[in-house]
Amino acid sequence: MASTVEGGDTALLPEFPRGPLDAYRARASFSWKELALFTEGEGMLRFKVFGSAVYSSGSERHLTYIQKIFRMEIFGCFALTELSHGSNTKAIRTTAHYDPATEEFIIHSPDFEAAKFWVGNMGKTATHAVVFAKLCVPGDQCHGLHPFIVQIRDPKTLLPMPGVMVGDIGKKLGQNGLDNGFAMFHKVRVPRQSLLNRMGDVTPEGTYVSPFKDVRQRFGASLGSLSSGRVSIVSLAILNLKLAVAIALRFSATRRQFGPTEEEEIPVLEYPMQQWRLLPYLAAVYALDHFSKSLFLDLVELQRGLASGDRSARQAELGREIHALASASKPLASWTTQQGIQECREACGGHGYLAMNRLGVLRDDNDPNCTYEGDNNILLQQTSNYLLGLLAHQVHAWGSQWFGFLSSTKVTGMCVLDGACFRSPLKSVDFLDAYPGILDQKFEVSSVADCLDSAVALAAYKWLVCYLLRETYQKLNQEKRSGSSDFEARNKCQVSHGRPLALAFVELTVVQRFHEHVHQPSVPPSLRAVLGRLSALYALWSLSRHAALLYRGGYFSGEQAGEVLESAVLALCSQLKDDAVALVDVIAPPDFVLDSPIGRADGELYKNLWGAVLQESKVLERASWWPEFSVNKPVIGSLKSKL
Amino acid sequence: MASTVEGGDTALLPEFPRGPLDAYRARASFSWKELALFTEGEGMLRFKVFGSAVYSSGSERHLTYIQKIFRMEIFGCFALTELSHGSNTKAIRTTAHYDPATEEFIIHSPDFEAAKFWVGNMGKTATHAVVFAKLCVPGDQCHGLHPFIVQIRDPKTLLPMPGVMVGDIGKKLGQNGLDNGFAMFHKVRVPRQSLLNRMGDVTPEGTYVSPFKDVRQRFGASLGSLSSGRVSIVSLAILNLKLAVAIALRFSATRRQFGPTEEEEIPVLEYPMQQWRLLPYLAAVYALDHFSKSLFLDLVELQRGLASGDRSARQAELGREIHALASASKPLASWTTQQGIQECREACGGHGYLAMNRLGVLRDDNDPNCTYEGDNNILLQQTSNYLLGLLAHQVHAWGSQWFGFLSSTKVTGMCVLDGACFRSPLKSVDFLDAYPGILDQKFEVSSVADCLDSAVALAAYKWLVCYLLRETYQKLNQEKRSGSSDFEARNKCQVSHGRPLALAFVELTVVQRFHEHVHQPSVPPSLRAVLGRLSALYALWSLSRHAALLYRGGYFSGEQAGEVLESAVLALCSQLKDDAVALVDVIAPPDFVLDSPIGRADGELYKNLWGAVLQESKVLERASWWPEFSVNKPVIGSLKSKL
Repeated sequence: MASTVEGGDTALLPEFPRGPLDAYRARASFSWKELALFTEGEGMLRFKVFGSAVYSSGSERHLTYIQKIFRMEIFGCFALTELSHGSNTKAIRTTAHYDPATEEFIIHSPDFEAAKFWVGNMGKTATHAVVFAKLCVPGDQCHGLHPFIVQIRDPKTLLPMPGVMVGDIGKKLGQNGLDNGFAMFHKVRVPRQSLLNRMGDVTPEGTYVSPFKDVRQRFGASLGSLSSGRVSIVSLAILNLKLAVAIALRFSATRRQFGPTEEEEIPVLEYPMQQWRLLPYLAAVYALDHFSKSLFLDLVELQRGLASGDRSARQAELGREIHALASASKPLASWTTQQGIQECREACGGHGYLAMNRLGVLRDDNDPNCTYEGDNNILLQQTSNYLLGLLAHQVHAWGSQWFGFLSSTKVTGMCVLDGACFRSPLKSVDFLDAYPGILDQKFEVSSVADCLDSAVALAAYKWLVCYLLRETYQKLNQEKRSGSSDFEARNKCQVSHGRPLALAFVELTVVQRFHEHVHQPSVPPSLRAVLGRLSALYALWSLSRHAALLYRGGYFSGEQAGEVLESAVLALCSQLKDDAVALVDVIAPPDFVLDSPIGRADGELYKNLWGAVLQESKVLERASWWPEFSVNKPVIGSLKSKL
Repeated sequence: MASTVEGGDTALLPEFPRGPLDAYRARASFSWKELALFTEGEGMLRFKVFGSAVYSSGSERHLTYIQKIFRMEIFGCFALTELSHGSNTKAIRTTAHYDPATEEFIIHSPDFEAAKFWVGNMGKTATHAVVFAKLCVPGDQCHGLHPFIVQIRDPKTLLPMPGVMVGDIGKKLGQNGLDNGFAMFHKVRVPRQSLLNRMGDVTPEGTYVSPFKDVRQRFGASLGSLSSGRVSIVSLAILNLKLAVAIALRFSATRRQFGPTEEEEIPVLEYPMQQWRLLPYLAAVYALDHFSKSLFLDLVELQRGLASGDRSARQAELGREIHALASASKPLASWTTQQGIQECREACGGHGYLAMNRLGVLRDDNDPNCTYEGDNNILLQQTSNYLLGLLAHQVHAWGSQWFGFLSSTKVTGMCVLDGACFRSPLKSVDFLDAYPGILDQKFEVSSVADCLDSAVALAAYKWLVCYLLRETYQKLNQEKRSGSSDFEARNKCQVSHGRPLALAFVELTVVQRFHEHVHQPSVPPSLRAVLGRLSALYALWSLSRHAALLYRGGYFSGEQAGEVLESAVLALCSQLKDDAVALVDVIAPPDFVLDSPIGRADGELYKNLWGAVLQESKVLERASWWPEFSVNKPVIGSLKSKL
């Protein structure tokens, strides 16, 4: 009989076919169906770029576009990046000059370096584009980037509109189902109403008006829409990693190689090396997937506030906090996935290099997640700047008393006035209030057994973020004192300070949220052990990459600390290896979606692979050029010059 | 006037076209032509797998094949791996039963899991294969794997021979110019002389004979040919990395983004972050390229000894040492390249993701270097086993006195008897004789300026290898004492001990050889500074990844050690950034070979990219499906079920 868990019914989930994976499925410490139902509750749907840009940046007069989008009469794209500029949006050079005589904007690309480039859907399909251009009104007054709806193709013929040169940028490493394109505009006139005027507008006479007092405030208000793209990328990256670990772990549970005796071969999953290579990424899938869903809900709260016109301080703070979290979690998720897919590819040996097993296309399709919506390394600067800004605010409020923080001597009870405390709507920075005590802490776990809980890593991460924040702040001030400009000082601090600070902060937040999730009372008792292990493994494995910093700052000392951390990761891998197949069963899609012969749910590794190879086109056939290679081949020397 | 350097003439090298890279070329601290000529002296040619297998494993009676190979009458391939077994060659299941009645071997694949698989050139072209099969003589006596020449296709028709099922395994992630194939043999009879009989032979009557006393010795003798494949892969990997860093650095010197003021944008190469991402890989190219060439010369010495029948102890030791170095340098080079290409791809932003810029194909083509000729992680075990074997030999020779080594108390002058010293033909392990003094050392460099030389990293690496060797030896014995079998104990120690030991050892060797190379008296004075910086950067950057271990074992202590190391890496990057373009000019092939619009020598980034995009097929043309997407598109709802 099927059990029911919190309203879900395990009978809805199909049984897997019997086969070589049975042994591991039988050894699992929990019911995969129960975990699948427990996890299922977190699911939700996502957004579209063109439509959401029109909706969020436009006003009532643009609703007609929304209707046409939904009736599929027009197809849009989002055109910001240019051939020579991406990250530095202030240097975007497409212009929109207003002509009061005709009440039109003139969209113009000064030269090909200002061609819009990399625009998704622009290559072959889009009929309209949201084009970002510098808005200028008569008298040569320019007001920065604004979005305009510009028709680029005739929806009846798909031919370009007059003055628009539009095309496809060509083959990419992956994502070739998407037609990335370019466009140049030669004095293309669009009606005044084409301006998406949420952030600023132009009167018929040519006067610029904006509900925002200054450019900086207008910029702040647009952070929310930047975050939504990044939050979506986190979930896309994790989806790729899910597929990759599913393939690699089912392969590892069925591929046998070597063994304790010459007669007996064991599945490669039994080797500590293979466990260490793959199981941390399985744990990362669970931890990051939970984080991605919870951050999405935070974003919904932010968007709801934006839609209702909330201009409270809390709403602004929420926007900044989500911006900081999204700017660091996109790099974390996309890099973890990129490295994870590569490890999965290698862990499947040659068979992982065969295209049909799909690890290559996953890697290639994930790769741009590291780049678009902000280069990962540049985004991390947003997060470290957020934290440094909070600290500067505290120092400003408290003056020299903050020296206590900066020199790490004992100061307690700083947070007496609410305005001068570390407080954020999602509470991700609240722990910083306890900084003096945190910086005094040391790693005092002396046995591996005491280390097998994510609480150990949480404590270490809190110390690490406090330490890096203090070091970054000091280094930045030191650079400035020695004559560096703000621009130079930040650039000099980013590699060694800002970057690890941002990563440690977002890793802490991921670990914190997953730790709370798996320790909440609603977790079925039968799932607590396995979820606790996943949480601890992800936390300790991530932390172990910062071991040098933990030693350097004095949180770790002696041989034992590093040894315990390393041994705990290996112990957790060993504890989880019998659950690995069942944990994959929870996250893997059906075989026709996973679409990888070595990763099928029946575990019939070689039958599936051999069958798939023989199904490919022209497997056993001679190549078309066989005569030139055999009977008609050129005689050696016959091609020599006769001169 | 062109200068001459050690017999080379810089006039032979062409000038680069003038353009945006001029500024960096003018700032270089050295003449790229001078360095190109200095480096040129190291060049040399490489080998072919099928031909070399026939040559090195066969005897006089196989010379006819060699002639046919050179006349291009037959095309061969090397068939070892099977569908279900690769690394564990002992589990290869293809059989070769000898039939004295006809003086033939019967080659047979028991089932499809024993199909030869992944064999390069087998998919469509090869007419013959060197097939590895278990040799059995009447009476069911089997003698392990032996190579046989088997004809698989008719050279006149390219149709398969009777009993042979041969085909193509399908698309791979890269290297699709190579037709990897599979083959199954159904009782295929080949003459007795098809056995490549260097390691063992069968008399016409069916008696097995071998010049080697036991299987282990026969295995040892075959190590040399395993090494040659791995040494070749090191050079292939470095070639890929050369191309990638050339593309990324020329891009970085011409791509401008942000700047100290809103008006002024600077090349992204000016950012410490971009320098830190790319310049260590440029240094790695120089250091690993030198190592690869020097290891090739060592291999030539080994092969010369094999060819002349040298069975001296030195020859055997040389084989083992080269095996250990090749087994760890293949992983080091292929991983460094894989990570380096990925970093180059990301460092070029979206343009790095465009297929025409070639970073994708470099990554995909390099990827199998991590897998074939031995999975990287498995190969590292060969190297750690080599070092552990040397230590066990010392412990055996010296008994309890070696406790000094194992407990790191001061013992000096152990090496009084030559037989009980660490000595190897290439001297890569000789430094271990000084272990007691080495393990007592500490990192005592207190300023960044004192750290800018590879000698600092060399000393740290020597300590690290001694430390890891001792720890690994102790951990292994501890595992055995607590009841683990040898198999289990080695598997348990590999992740945390054997793997870092092997990597640290080979990194030390690479650093040592490059350090000696750039400090030799024949280096022109004008090149000493830049070569010294490259050597120091590669050494310190590699070392920095072991910082946690340096702290853990007590070589590092206090905040300063880690800070100095980190700052030295950044300082060297900063010192080398003005030389980066010239260093790339030395290693980059001509534009038509590099074949990357963003990496051309003229530095005209956007002109080249824009021009290349417009040259692609059907750039501005409508897609073939345009009518279905516009005039003839289905009405929404028209596809709904009419039921």
